[in-house]
Amino acid sequence: MRFKSQQQLEEWIKRAKGAASASVHTAGTVATQSNTVPIDPAVQRRILGVDTALRCTGWGMIDVRGNNMKAVDCGVIKNPPQDKVSGCLRCLAGGIREIIQLYHPDIAVLEGAFYFANVRTAMILGSARGAVISVLAENNIPVYEYAPRRIKQAVCGNGNASKEQVAIMVANYLGIKTDALALDSTDALSMAICHAYELTTAGGLSLPPEV
Amino acid sequence: MRFKSQQQLEEWIKRAKGAASASVHTAGTVATQSNTVPIDPAVQRRILGVDTALRCTGWGMIDVRGNNMKAVDCGVIKNPPQDKVSGCLRCLAGGIREIIQLYHPDIAVLEGAFYFANVRTAMILGSARGAVISVLAENNIPVYEYAPRRIKQAVCGNGNASKEQVAIMVANYLGIKTDALALDSTDALSMAICHAYELTTAGGLSLPPEV
Repeated sequence: MRFKSQQQLEEWIKRAKGAASASVHTAGTVATQSNTVPIDPAVQRRILGVDTALRCTGWGMIDVRGNNMKAVDCGVIKNPPQDKVSGCLRCLAGGIREIIQLYHPDIAVLEGAFYFANVRTAMILGSARGAVISVLAENNIPVYEYAPRRIKQAVCGNGNASKEQVAIMVANYLGIKTDALALDSTDALSMAICHAYELTTAGGLSLPPEV
Repeated sequence: MRFKSQQQLEEWIKRAKGAASASVHTAGTVATQSNTVPIDPAVQRRILGVDTALRCTGWGMIDVRGNNMKAVDCGVIKNPPQDKVSGCLRCLAGGIREIIQLYHPDIAVLEGAFYFANVRTAMILGSARGAVISVLAENNIPVYEYAPRRIKQAVCGNGNASKEQVAIMVANYLGIKTDALALDSTDALSMAICHAYELTTAGGLSLPPEV
């Protein structure tokens, strides 16, 4: 996405923010009513977003208190293309364990509800998700998942937004520069932001059920 | 599968064994030539077979030296139907870790090359496989996989054999009673037996590549 001037970019961000906040407030009414106790917005929560894949997994961590969000860290767990599947899963599980030990997140968020034409791809992505979820569960971290469209809708106000548009909005929400960051890690940050919205909307009563 | 007399059962086992040994010796010629160093049959190896699933995972362990096979232990890792996916994956990873610490297997074998009509099922089974493979890889245990048809062919001489037929042949090869065992665990034992055959056929030169 290219903008001719700074003013044009700022106008686009303003419009996207307006659409995103509208979409979040309507999204809550159609979500599964799985929680019965409202969530206290004054409590600080650390949310880890993980954009799972076998070869390049993005991760991003934010702190949330009420409507305030702050970036903590983000990055990618990369596996060389010549590595065996078992080696990739080992690195992935080890990487997530390391991130947990370093930052102690309270909640983890993944992308869910995938639609693949190819069963083989679904199996491979499924293995990566299994390795990540089992490590999170062993560390007693609750896992939530959102459909990719819903995450983009919450962050950009448009379910078909590109990865570049997501990165611009993540930069704007968190007040950080995302130009040098991998798009997989800004995607992961957007998942954490999406969950932060759901936590603060209607006292968290519209949160999806845990995975 | 019902047999009218002990003699009829014994004849069936004899025929199945004949067909199985023929199939193993032809299977070797079409497999990928991935190993270049012949495997010493005099060395004892402990093989763990895992029949992976989210709710009920069967496992079976055998010791192999040359053409001699001996059952070590087998069982199932069960998760209640009401448990969350993350809880199931946690139990599965924990269960496999416990088995490894108890029995120290040298090699693990899984079922591979699945064909599902349903992508959702492939994703769920993929997560279970991911949780298992990551634990095996973290413990430096090489993982091999065989197509379900190939395992049945190696054990029963018939790629379409039923789970009950597989259990009868497993009982015969290992000299154990399988009547009281779960079919998932005898299936897991059959995977270990299939790999034992591949190890002893042509000095293990026809082994498939590691996962």
